[in-house]
Amino acid sequence: MKDVLSVRNWRYATKKFDADKKASQEEIDQLLEAIRLSASSYGLQPYQVYLIETPEIRQELQPHSWNQSQITQASHLLVFASCTDFDDQLIDNYLDQISEVRGIEKEQLEGYGNFMKQTLGPWPADRKADWCARQAYIALGNGLQAAAELGLDTCPIEGFVPAEYNRILKLDEKRLTACVVMAVGYRSEEDANQHLKKVRNPKDDFITSI
Amino acid sequence: MKDVLSVRNWRYATKKFDADKKASQEEIDQLLEAIRLSASSYGLQPYQVYLIETPEIRQELQPHSWNQSQITQASHLLVFASCTDFDDQLIDNYLDQISEVRGIEKEQLEGYGNFMKQTLGPWPADRKADWCARQAYIALGNGLQAAAELGLDTCPIEGFVPAEYNRILKLDEKRLTACVVMAVGYRSEEDANQHLKKVRNPKDDFITSI
Repeated sequence: MKDVLSVRNWRYATKKFDADKKASQEEIDQLLEAIRLSASSYGLQPYQVYLIETPEIRQELQPHSWNQSQITQASHLLVFASCTDFDDQLIDNYLDQISEVRGIEKEQLEGYGNFMKQTLGPWPADRKADWCARQAYIALGNGLQAAAELGLDTCPIEGFVPAEYNRILKLDEKRLTACVVMAVGYRSEEDANQHLKKVRNPKDDFITSI
Repeated sequence: MKDVLSVRNWRYATKKFDADKKASQEEIDQLLEAIRLSASSYGLQPYQVYLIETPEIRQELQPHSWNQSQITQASHLLVFASCTDFDDQLIDNYLDQISEVRGIEKEQLEGYGNFMKQTLGPWPADRKADWCARQAYIALGNGLQAAAELGLDTCPIEGFVPAEYNRILKLDEKRLTACVVMAVGYRSEEDANQHLKKVRNPKDDFITSI
């Protein structure tokens, strides 16, 4: 049986990155592609990923991120931006892609499209926004693991001010909101957190078999 | 560089499972342990995982799951149950565990505990519930991948009635709600979906580099 635990035990929320060690473009491309392959409800992927490469933008984001050093010190910074709202267009775009990729006539997809529209359409806006963010969190879970497989350290970050991120990254105009951040790079030798034992809810409290 | 894409391309949302092929207890234990190692905000893990082993319970859940065959046909069924609310007790329990696992005096953790309490405590109940569910979705993303690494097929399922799941699994009394389901097992040879090309937002639409 494949060992799936070692890399998961190796991963930890890196608090101090080595600012001099950069992930290669190839590694980042693989990571982004792994994230793009994440599961999402119906496959709709109601979020986007922003790769922040400009140092000045990262400096601008830092004070709105509890001044956490990872924002500027990590090799790369990803911002998951989920849809704040959506309408039938989201589904129609998806149907277009299914039609193109799988070579299916659009007429044949109409029933499936209507089903999605009737299921998701009536939801109130806040439920839609929350659902979009949840899909991004699937990608975060997958992305943290993909990075670890590539030997890259990460820190998932919720400690930031979405409104400020949205303003700086111009997300509002795209009906997106920054929902979670992922710093990527290499752990600093000085980060004491890497030596701490993992704390998790005990198996018996966490898992119930019935 | 490690290939992180093959297994992600292999994974797909399995619609028809082979009802005769069971995952081993060892595989399921590894999967559950991988899930338990998932990242969560502050490490608080505000959710639990229910492994539904009793066939009668799975039959009872099926009509409340759009009658999807995966609920009863998959080898194993996991229900992620997130906290509907929480108070300082969640944080105090976590501090107790940190103290125990890392051998740190509780007094030394008081400042960190107060920080968490002051950050999370004032949130309205619906924000708390949503945040808990998001943490479970990180575990879902990690769990889908862990299963694939083990050669197990999965189907993530949102199409169910949480209130009925909560009633059947007695989650209400624990201040939990079923937030997402993961069927685990082996794909049936008859599942045509395994042969379909993956549909994903094109890279240029999905990723923005700035």
